[in-house]
Amino acid sequence: MRILGIDPGLNTTGYGVVEARGQRLHYQASGTIRIPKGSLPERLKTLFDGVSEVARQAAADVAVVEIVFVNVNPQSTLLLGQARGAAIAALVAQGLPVVEYTALQLKKSIVGYGRASKSQMQEMVTRLLALPGQPGADAADALGLAICHAHAKQGLAALHQATSPSNEGKIDVSSGKLSAAQLRGVRVRGGRLIG
Amino acid sequence: MRILGIDPGLNTTGYGVVEARGQRLHYQASGTIRIPKGSLPERLKTLFDGVSEVARQAAADVAVVEIVFVNVNPQSTLLLGQARGAAIAALVAQGLPVVEYTALQLKKSIVGYGRASKSQMQEMVTRLLALPGQPGADAADALGLAICHAHAKQGLAALHQATSPSNEGKIDVSSGKLSAAQLRGVRVRGGRLIG
Repeated sequence: MRILGIDPGLNTTGYGVVEARGQRLHYQASGTIRIPKGSLPERLKTLFDGVSEVARQAAADVAVVEIVFVNVNPQSTLLLGQARGAAIAALVAQGLPVVEYTALQLKKSIVGYGRASKSQMQEMVTRLLALPGQPGADAADALGLAICHAHAKQGLAALHQATSPSNEGKIDVSSGKLSAAQLRGVRVRGGRLIG
Repeated sequence: MRILGIDPGLNTTGYGVVEARGQRLHYQASGTIRIPKGSLPERLKTLFDGVSEVARQAAADVAVVEIVFVNVNPQSTLLLGQARGAAIAALVAQGLPVVEYTALQLKKSIVGYGRASKSQMQEMVTRLLALPGQPGADAADALGLAICHAHAKQGLAALHQATSPSNEGKIDVSSGKLSAAQLRGVRVRGGRLIG
């Protein structure tokens, strides 16, 4: 499975592509789309075209974007929202399913705890993908998102392996935090989340 | 000149197309893109596809979107920002230049004062375009944006006519609020804003 992570922003948008084969992760590509100053429509066009191009070249099966929460600065929230809207539009226009994780899920998955710094994220991404050098902060976040999704899928697959040796049965997945009612319809088959 | 107005929202997005010939305005089309409940990426896809389709069918020369300001509710601000980002991305991806006006400019241009209500906007749009019936609130806002842009262009054209009978000269346009330094490079030629 090929996973494209996108970290949208109106000044720079990071991207990272990771191939997950079983438990192994393989780095494919990463970088930053730099968006020159200009009118908002011009900047959104650069962002949209850049993410579209990355999505075409990545040939990914799925895209991953961070769920953002409101900023202390409402104007920043609005700008980030617009960047995120244009980025997700580019991904879905390329036919990619888009999965979202919170910053907390991302940091826990990559660094191990939710208050990790940007440089800790860069270090861990470098180590997990055995990179020869550290990627930039935006690209590291984007790679982190792709790895986070691979981990989530591997976790489900491992759980499935442990409980269903035939690889054909259906099992319910519980995080231990959801009620039976909330879990209804959430099942795992062949390591893929369905329902 | 054919003008496409878009009033983006995550639940409903209004659109309106107006043809401006000289001082006359001709209604072309209007409507609402209804966006069913679903995940954010799904809703942004519906919005993006809908605006793309409207832009293709409208065959407009320019698109107009309202400049939004931050809402009292930060979560609404984020959602609106994402809807707006996807809508503008769809317009620029269709090669349309996108012009923005504030709600104040829109209301002053259509109703005559900045605190006009939604129903006043619907009434005035109906009258200005001599429509047989009132459009919905979202479509009326979108048509209002298109008319607002036509008015702005007509105002510039009239100013140009008044000061440059040869239609070839260059004049500076001043709103009376900008400094000479801010105005540098803003000129009018043949009724079109350039620079």
